[in-house]
Amino acid sequence: MTSPAGRPEGDYRNPQGEGGAMSWLEDVRWNDQGLVPAIAQEAVSGQVLTLAWMNREALERTAATHEAHYWSRSRARLWRKGERSGHVQKVREIRLDCDNDAVLLIVDQAGGIACHTGRARCFYQRLGAQGWESDDPVLADPALIYGAR
Amino acid sequence: MTSPAGRPEGDYRNPQGEGGAMSWLEDVRWNDQGLVPAIAQEAVSGQVLTLAWMNREALERTAATHEAHYWSRSRARLWRKGERSGHVQKVREIRLDCDNDAVLLIVDQAGGIACHTGRARCFYQRLGAQGWESDDPVLADPALIYGAR
Repeated sequence: MTSPAGRPEGDYRNPQGEGGAMSWLEDVRWNDQGLVPAIAQEAVSGQVLTLAWMNREALERTAATHEAHYWSRSRARLWRKGERSGHVQKVREIRLDCDNDAVLLIVDQAGGIACHTGRARCFYQRLGAQGWESDDPVLADPALIYGAR
Repeated sequence: MTSPAGRPEGDYRNPQGEGGAMSWLEDVRWNDQGLVPAIAQEAVSGQVLTLAWMNREALERTAATHEAHYWSRSRARLWRKGERSGHVQKVREIRLDCDNDAVLLIVDQAGGIACHTGRARCFYQRLGAQGWESDDPVLADPALIYGAR
């Protein structure tokens, strides 16, 4: 099975590893709160879209469903990215860094909007001579994104 | 002044902001340990290289020197990326996300190697059918990178 872009998908569904079922989840170095930071990078543009947090269940569901799930620290609950906005992140790859404490997702971003402010990415503030300056356009009104749902 | 790649640099040196000197550092939402996660993305390739942590001093020095500085949690000290390996990260842009608690650096990676394992990036493990699989080549022997210094 290949994705529309022709890249393989599904080959990480329920990986087993040598240590038995779900041992790959044990390889992750979860922090004191049982979380790990997860970067989402858009496959087609290369843009870094978001940094969010995952607990064990979020990473497991992300691998099983190929849709990004995170742990909302402010709401203290599991959260499927795009569950209200429709701006889901379809996951092509799940990567882990050298010391096993940071995750990188390569994603297709539905709607081309990752940020709750209606911008393509959350990293829209750039340090300039006057401090932080917003230099990415708002593509959709957040009231319209979230209002009708 | 422009960088070798022709992009402007220096325009964020000592930004003042409306609230006075260094108020831009106050805008960052530091965590309970006074840290913020900082992603480094390579400008030329678009690759996400590293996720490390900054304290206030690390971010201030990064802005002042245009070289990435981090806070090493394991060694509990400030750390200039590449201080031993020579693999410095020259910073083109410093970006902040929508809730002010994650930083994104756009960098030129000296030597094309960001990882202490001698790979281009730290995110060299990909989740596959057998769990985490290394799919990036080692470009230089770490013993040679660190041994002679």
